[in-house]
Amino acid sequence: MTTHNAHTPASVAESTTESTEQSTDGAQRAIGWHKGYVQGSRPDLRVPVRRVHLTNGKDVTLYDTSGPYTDPAVETDVRRGLAPLRENWITGRGDTEVYAGRPARPEDDGLKHTAPRGETRRGGATDLRGLDAVFPGRPRQPRRGRSGRAVTQLAYARRGEITPEMEYAAIRENVPPETVREEIAAGRAVLPANVNHPEIEPMVIGKRFLVKVNANIGNSAVTSSIEEEVEKMTWATRWGADTVMDLSTGRNIHTTREWVLRNSPVPIGTVPLYQALEKVDGKAEELTWDVYKDTVIEQAEQGVDYMTVHAGVLLRYVPLTARRKTGIVSRGGSIMAAWCLAHHKESFLYEHFEELCEILAAYDVTYSLGDGLRPGSIADANDEAQFAELRTLGELNSTAKRMGVQTMIEGPGHVPMHKIKENIDLQQEICEEAPFYTLGPLTTDVAPAYDHITSGIGAAMIAWWGTAMLCYVTPKEHLGLPDRDDVKTGVITYKIAAHAADLAKGHPGAQEWDDALSDARFEFRWEDQFNLALDPDTAREFHDETLPAEPAKTAHFCSMCGPKFCSMKISQDIRRRHGDAMGTNAGAEGGGTETGEAEIEAGMAEKAREFAAAGHRVYLPLAD
Amino acid sequence: MTTHNAHTPASVAESTTESTEQSTDGAQRAIGWHKGYVQGSRPDLRVPVRRVHLTNGKDVTLYDTSGPYTDPAVETDVRRGLAPLRENWITGRGDTEVYAGRPARPEDDGLKHTAPRGETRRGGATDLRGLDAVFPGRPRQPRRGRSGRAVTQLAYARRGEITPEMEYAAIRENVPPETVREEIAAGRAVLPANVNHPEIEPMVIGKRFLVKVNANIGNSAVTSSIEEEVEKMTWATRWGADTVMDLSTGRNIHTTREWVLRNSPVPIGTVPLYQALEKVDGKAEELTWDVYKDTVIEQAEQGVDYMTVHAGVLLRYVPLTARRKTGIVSRGGSIMAAWCLAHHKESFLYEHFEELCEILAAYDVTYSLGDGLRPGSIADANDEAQFAELRTLGELNSTAKRMGVQTMIEGPGHVPMHKIKENIDLQQEICEEAPFYTLGPLTTDVAPAYDHITSGIGAAMIAWWGTAMLCYVTPKEHLGLPDRDDVKTGVITYKIAAHAADLAKGHPGAQEWDDALSDARFEFRWEDQFNLALDPDTAREFHDETLPAEPAKTAHFCSMCGPKFCSMKISQDIRRRHGDAMGTNAGAEGGGTETGEAEIEAGMAEKAREFAAAGHRVYLPLAD
Repeated sequence: MTTHNAHTPASVAESTTESTEQSTDGAQRAIGWHKGYVQGSRPDLRVPVRRVHLTNGKDVTLYDTSGPYTDPAVETDVRRGLAPLRENWITGRGDTEVYAGRPARPEDDGLKHTAPRGETRRGGATDLRGLDAVFPGRPRQPRRGRSGRAVTQLAYARRGEITPEMEYAAIRENVPPETVREEIAAGRAVLPANVNHPEIEPMVIGKRFLVKVNANIGNSAVTSSIEEEVEKMTWATRWGADTVMDLSTGRNIHTTREWVLRNSPVPIGTVPLYQALEKVDGKAEELTWDVYKDTVIEQAEQGVDYMTVHAGVLLRYVPLTARRKTGIVSRGGSIMAAWCLAHHKESFLYEHFEELCEILAAYDVTYSLGDGLRPGSIADANDEAQFAELRTLGELNSTAKRMGVQTMIEGPGHVPMHKIKENIDLQQEICEEAPFYTLGPLTTDVAPAYDHITSGIGAAMIAWWGTAMLCYVTPKEHLGLPDRDDVKTGVITYKIAAHAADLAKGHPGAQEWDDALSDARFEFRWEDQFNLALDPDTAREFHDETLPAEPAKTAHFCSMCGPKFCSMKISQDIRRRHGDAMGTNAGAEGGGTETGEAEIEAGMAEKAREFAAAGHRVYLPLAD
Repeated sequence: MTTHNAHTPASVAESTTESTEQSTDGAQRAIGWHKGYVQGSRPDLRVPVRRVHLTNGKDVTLYDTSGPYTDPAVETDVRRGLAPLRENWITGRGDTEVYAGRPARPEDDGLKHTAPRGETRRGGATDLRGLDAVFPGRPRQPRRGRSGRAVTQLAYARRGEITPEMEYAAIRENVPPETVREEIAAGRAVLPANVNHPEIEPMVIGKRFLVKVNANIGNSAVTSSIEEEVEKMTWATRWGADTVMDLSTGRNIHTTREWVLRNSPVPIGTVPLYQALEKVDGKAEELTWDVYKDTVIEQAEQGVDYMTVHAGVLLRYVPLTARRKTGIVSRGGSIMAAWCLAHHKESFLYEHFEELCEILAAYDVTYSLGDGLRPGSIADANDEAQFAELRTLGELNSTAKRMGVQTMIEGPGHVPMHKIKENIDLQQEICEEAPFYTLGPLTTDVAPAYDHITSGIGAAMIAWWGTAMLCYVTPKEHLGLPDRDDVKTGVITYKIAAHAADLAKGHPGAQEWDDALSDARFEFRWEDQFNLALDPDTAREFHDETLPAEPAKTAHFCSMCGPKFCSMKISQDIRRRHGDAMGTNAGAEGGGTETGEAEIEAGMAEKAREFAAAGHRVYLPLAD
């Protein structure tokens, strides 16, 4: 009956097939969930959803980020990549052109500047011919706006056009398409969708929409297989990541990104500065605008949907960090600060910002203006360095908007609870309500190994107050490299923060999910509780640890309190026996109370005996 | 070097002994921590602290809840119990008397009403003679206030007396003793300390003090050993639980509680209603005031420090729950509601509340006025049933105060973020700023298996706004029985919430802990980071997963970003090279930067090679 245990795209699809219709004994067995589609205004606009089938015959429809991998009707093959869902929409607009593109070079994959692509092998196991072999049917034919036109969703929105991408995102959000257009046009939302990434299922990021979650992945220090790389991304989206940042450094960075992009149903973000630094052998002071620009074009041609650009780290701000407890903790920020100091010149990112805008506009790459001077400790929160940079980001935001480029603003970091609101309020004011995209914030420094929690607290709060997207933090933050479990824990924690914020903001429809789960809980529909949970696998596993037997799935109590102390059972009894006195016909309402009283009592007694006989160690939970 | 790995009291003490002084090579090795004491105004008033020794020669002093178990100089024996620290203070006041006490009866341990204590065995493996055998040197000689006097900390505080208990708590909080007295006298704080529980290390609960955390334990469904029961409690306090509630039900409930009390350094809370229900074979309608009163006296004589009493569930409020999504989810609340409806009479707890106050005042048992109608789902938050009960709790709070009984008020539950503040504001207003003691609140219903996180978010927020103590929630909430790992996860999560709130409230000294850890982080003092962490074991373990080698403990980077991308390393380089230009002598500040540059570079290169050679799977974390 496990419908969510799948750990690879293939097996997800498989188990979904199995579970589509499995109910043989009516209401007592869960029938799981399946991938459904909502039809849009044109035949090729079908928006995926997760439909959870409840044992009471109802369906609950949930937002779905998992891509075609969970659709049993779609055959996926990482070596072919996903179908280019948006291709006709992009070409149909007639404002882009295909061109030869920048030739791939060995140094794109972190190799030395020696031989042309495909002719040689250097640096160990790397084989540059790999890329062509992987996607034989899809040679690189990058696309860009004709004669420098801004082919961005922002430009279309301003012209009053509702693109298929906007309609698609609107259906996911359950709002009118015009709302999506309006928010994008006003710069209050972004729809990251590079014209070279036709595979994505469009989504929108803005405070009037569902709070989104980003998960970071990155390539291995040693060569890893194509399947591994893609699996990291699908694993994160499987649990609800709305976008993924590929923060790879080192070898095979170009090839890895190609694999991720061609197989990703969600927008992909990067920090081009990392790859640029690789191209100058890791020496920050040797970075140049030309190397950086070359890297941005390389990545834009591949299809990167948004790029973190640390253009707000100015020479004059660096001394403001001197008295800080933890200096500069952003990698990009520290690289740019080192460059500025080494040359005693203003940042080349700042100096060439308009040129950068022109490039991004030609591919519809969205800016994520990085907060290179974000605080890395409670002590440094909301200091002059941080807010000085924010004011510069405000200026850059205006420039980007003027040039038609979609823009988000990145935010901290480490911030104690009482200083969080100032961050979002200032950002919204200074950056004209551009979407805020925050890392946490972490609300204390004292819990390494639990920073998904220290930051989940801050993330929920700042999202309630208006942050549009949250960058997840895993338990390994500050300590090491997240593994598969850490990525899942990070995503789930942040989905909790995001949904808690959706509830607090009163997002239409958000509470239906909570209500459906609480109804199932009160009516002892255990399978429905599991299937509706953010993480059905773990919920089911925890329940089964103490009450593993199949009859327990319909028991009117759980192992927490046992049958005698189950408040929900007593509550139901009260309603059944005293329904009239309570001015309600509640006795007839309880989904699980049709059985006769004597029968229930007998069943209870049996469960109680089973439970005692099982002899598990018992730590009683809950208050009273 | 592991100083925190101990899983039992004995081994904690052992490893502490080992680690007290172990540094042989100066600043490169952590020297761990040791149990210290702060001397009060009298020789027998010594307040335990955890002193963390940093490799830079400084000490950081942290609040310590772990009791004598972590003091290598103290020999503990669960069969003898802890030393009665407060005995001389209690007898010295001369206002209590020893008396014969209520005779123990078989039904106290959930056995049938047949034979006198100690003469027979019934109900399986239970042996009532066990209790006497366990504490042979400490026969039950309960103590109570002479001729009905209120021997409560509230009564003393009102008379202007600063008791040793108040001074003890004040030293822990780093505030003047007079502050503790004032807050207790005003009813804004409680110091739970039954005269029959002389073993506790006194602590204070109130919004002007550090936010406290309660952990729940309970006996096993099957017989378990004395060591197991005590170990559950010490395990929770080991990780920072400030109080423990024993929510045992079923067999051996009296004996289990005796073991827990005699070995507990923290105040113990209970819900007497559970045991009373056992005495009437689980039939709520057969409960009587006499059975309940007998149970309260039984537990007060044993030394229970605070009791949850659901006296606010009135007959007329029960119908208010009829239209709720999840009815009544408090066990105590549902039992009392069932009783009220069955008899169509007002709650015997409410009707006899003044008599109950007299009993509690005679032992200094603190009220925890239960919120029997708290919401069990987002949909039911802040509804009429909940707030009607709160108003009654306000009335009962006034009565209790008038009769000299210390009182806390329990709070929800399931509450979305935007409705949390109303809860604390109303409670503070209606209950005259009596300490609020909340369960969570859970900010969404959709994440069973992660309710420590859904509730940790709400807990941090409500504590910031004034909640004095948080009742933890474990990952097993709603699903099953927490095991050892769940208890630890619950406590750590709630310590994070509590400390985040202490920071946000600006509690004096709270940020020093964060600052010490952040300094260690910036200066790459890995061992200091581990030793200062809320959970040193897991922090160390996570670090070692990717960089296990001992030299990595002094490396100027970690596996997250590798040497080339370490922002803190670059930050330090910037300070060292450009200190003058930045208007700071920061180059000399970095604790780990004394080595020559060339040497560092060489070391880095070596670490980089080691790292690549290790070949771990790498998911890159963090944003940029």
